[in-house]
Amino acid sequence: MNIELNPDAAQTLKPLPPPEAQRLRGADLCQTLHWLAGARVSATALTQTYLDAIAARNAELNAYVALNPAARAEAAASDARRAKGKFGRLDGVPVAIKDNFDVAGLATACGLPGAHVPAHADAHAVARLRGAGAVILGKTHVPEAALGATSNNPHLGAAHNPFRHGYQAGGSSGGCAVAVAAGLAAVAIGSDSLGSIRIPASYCGLFALKPTHGEISTRGMIPAARRLDSVGLIARSVHDLGVLLHVLGGHDPADPRSRRRRVDLALPDWEPGKLRVGLLGDPGAFGIEPGVARAFERALMVLTHELENRCDVGFGDFDLPRARRAAFFMIEAEMLATHARAIADPAHPVSAEMQAWLAYARSKSAADYVAADHLLDAAVVAARRMFEQVDVLVTPTTPQTAFPLEAPLPDNAGDFTCIANLAGLPAVTIPMGMTLDGLPCGMQFVGPPGSDLRLLELAEVCAAALDTAPGYPCGQP
Amino acid sequence: MNIELNPDAAQTLKPLPPPEAQRLRGADLCQTLHWLAGARVSATALTQTYLDAIAARNAELNAYVALNPAARAEAAASDARRAKGKFGRLDGVPVAIKDNFDVAGLATACGLPGAHVPAHADAHAVARLRGAGAVILGKTHVPEAALGATSNNPHLGAAHNPFRHGYQAGGSSGGCAVAVAAGLAAVAIGSDSLGSIRIPASYCGLFALKPTHGEISTRGMIPAARRLDSVGLIARSVHDLGVLLHVLGGHDPADPRSRRRRVDLALPDWEPGKLRVGLLGDPGAFGIEPGVARAFERALMVLTHELENRCDVGFGDFDLPRARRAAFFMIEAEMLATHARAIADPAHPVSAEMQAWLAYARSKSAADYVAADHLLDAAVVAARRMFEQVDVLVTPTTPQTAFPLEAPLPDNAGDFTCIANLAGLPAVTIPMGMTLDGLPCGMQFVGPPGSDLRLLELAEVCAAALDTAPGYPCGQP
Repeated sequence: MNIELNPDAAQTLKPLPPPEAQRLRGADLCQTLHWLAGARVSATALTQTYLDAIAARNAELNAYVALNPAARAEAAASDARRAKGKFGRLDGVPVAIKDNFDVAGLATACGLPGAHVPAHADAHAVARLRGAGAVILGKTHVPEAALGATSNNPHLGAAHNPFRHGYQAGGSSGGCAVAVAAGLAAVAIGSDSLGSIRIPASYCGLFALKPTHGEISTRGMIPAARRLDSVGLIARSVHDLGVLLHVLGGHDPADPRSRRRRVDLALPDWEPGKLRVGLLGDPGAFGIEPGVARAFERALMVLTHELENRCDVGFGDFDLPRARRAAFFMIEAEMLATHARAIADPAHPVSAEMQAWLAYARSKSAADYVAADHLLDAAVVAARRMFEQVDVLVTPTTPQTAFPLEAPLPDNAGDFTCIANLAGLPAVTIPMGMTLDGLPCGMQFVGPPGSDLRLLELAEVCAAALDTAPGYPCGQP
Repeated sequence: MNIELNPDAAQTLKPLPPPEAQRLRGADLCQTLHWLAGARVSATALTQTYLDAIAARNAELNAYVALNPAARAEAAASDARRAKGKFGRLDGVPVAIKDNFDVAGLATACGLPGAHVPAHADAHAVARLRGAGAVILGKTHVPEAALGATSNNPHLGAAHNPFRHGYQAGGSSGGCAVAVAAGLAAVAIGSDSLGSIRIPASYCGLFALKPTHGEISTRGMIPAARRLDSVGLIARSVHDLGVLLHVLGGHDPADPRSRRRRVDLALPDWEPGKLRVGLLGDPGAFGIEPGVARAFERALMVLTHELENRCDVGFGDFDLPRARRAAFFMIEAEMLATHARAIADPAHPVSAEMQAWLAYARSKSAADYVAADHLLDAAVVAARRMFEQVDVLVTPTTPQTAFPLEAPLPDNAGDFTCIANLAGLPAVTIPMGMTLDGLPCGMQFVGPPGSDLRLLELAEVCAAALDTAPGYPCGQP
């Protein structure tokens, strides 16, 4: 792999650990499952490797907020299943779960202060992972109420970007990204309501998928806003995302927003030269940092063949920033309904910033919510018009790279990612290279509903051509 | 047909007119199209017959609030098309449009006071009817803002039930029902957000379909609440509903709630003995009038073979009345957003009752709206559970027959119909007979999403077995 770190940035990385543990923790699912299948490593040993690394590095990175005390037992059970020759698609793979999903026996704190009771059942996605044999390592860091594109949390401290300590990992699935990028989990599941899985993937040099709305059941996940919410997948390769989608996808009658119409189970025929690629025209209009703009231009140059047939597209008279603000308001309103008890607990007050958001939502009427819902309807129509002209929209994933944890949050972090949530579309992000100051940034592919596997296929081809997956900072301390 | 009027009720009907005009105006689409195709009648003559009847009877019935000045010209154009041998599925059929759909050149008053500008384009459903060659007769009566199961309107006066003057036609598509039942239109399109097409069909002895949510585009229809809204079809036979569904159905990219997945275009194979029929158990729990309960029992007895394999079903812990109230609140909130200008017009004040509804909605917060939306989510899940056990739910359409216009509105008029809107399901109503006091009432069939044609097939078989379509009071004065 082409590790494009500039010399200054490389100096911030820890020295390489003994190769075997580092290779185990930096491998993709295909390689890991191959080692497990070939008995090169047991689930028990693999899990222990990950647990050792978590013990060594979590104090510094703050990826996990809780560990699963049963992880070793689950790994032993996996080895027993393999010994009997009866095992699942992900048997023995150590995974991390964002702390807004229920894992039976562990609290779902969702970044809020106060005491939390253990969940009595697994969320649908967690149950599917278990059913495939995965080992649950623990629950990952989220911002307060899992709200905002940040890895800061006033109650838990910050999760740090493994590429540069003291920098944002992004959010709200920042803990997932830190765990996967630092080799503290093989893959992770998070959520994505305006970009929550893709923003941290972009900041941490990872691959992520936000599937078509309703493709993976969100049952047992704390809602941000049901019309926007998707389960998000984050990993160290595109192929891993495809494996996770197959394990997790499908209709769940108990989830009211679950889609009956599945994404195609087989990859579609695809002729690169015939693919119509949409670009958003002047990237300057979106306030893209020069370093990200350069990386995007360079990536498009490299992908001349893969993304050949290009045209500029726009949203017509659809007002994207207004719709994004409306969506954020819908999330705040949902917070009031979902977290009523936690918000009202005087012994464990939520932050002043959260109070301000909630006060804003409280000041808004039901008719305001209807108007916001209509803006999302307009997004659906605008997206349909766009995907009459093109097959895929390609953008930078975020307008910026990671920034210091103490810096103010940029307003536009979710401007490219929110498009998919507003209109229920699938979107994939891949690393598109490092900026000159040594931080990764992502390229996003957005398609019409149900085009998830087509997007993954295109993303895999592009990722191979770009060859810009960073060397993950998985070094043992 | 078995005209089951008791002698007292029959006396309230006008004496029969000359058979030809009465037959024309009481015929179903199949017969009408046959006459048109065989040149037994021209579109011009047919339209004139309907216009004459409207001129004679509308003052008494108040079915129409506006007539289409171009109707005769449209009929002449239809005859010209037929003469050339190039004509549409509904060419020359005179239809009525509920006054909450845009018809180019006519105002969409939606039952509100004040001046209204003419619509500049047809609603999607109207454009489809025109595309199939239908002749638009005019716009039909609605209650104020098309809100409520009533044919009263403080600004327009009441539309009267053709079976008994001074009685409710139901609502909010009451004008459509009056027009079709009194032979003032061949078929009509209305809307259905909690039962607005099925309640008037039940009170007026007609057949109606509320399709699967999103199956017919609602573009150009004034929303009641987008998650609940469907275009509603009303006619004098089940077969007519199927013809209308084929003309009107299909994906409309410009309607954000339009469904991509169509209902099956062919009727499914169906073995009556294997059909699992759900009943709601004790009808008394729903406050059904004794006369309606008897008609329902009798109908079920007649349909022993057609609805053989029966069981009682319920909604589990899903609180239907609470969800119905939540849905009504969502409609009120949408009113605030949709009719802001009309509501604020001091020169044409809305009624005190409407003001009270709107004040209630104004007092509710965005979080209240979210909570209501969650109740609809719960309805989706409850319906999925029900349709794991049964293929169709059979209920009375309304718990009561038509009642005097001055009587207070019963709270429960929409209790059976709202189920379909809360969960996005298709539902059909057919006449199931007359009560002893000579008023019609309906039987409702509700199925899972996409089962529209299966429901129509079942309804047609049941309607033939029951043979209870009333003799429509189409007499010329």
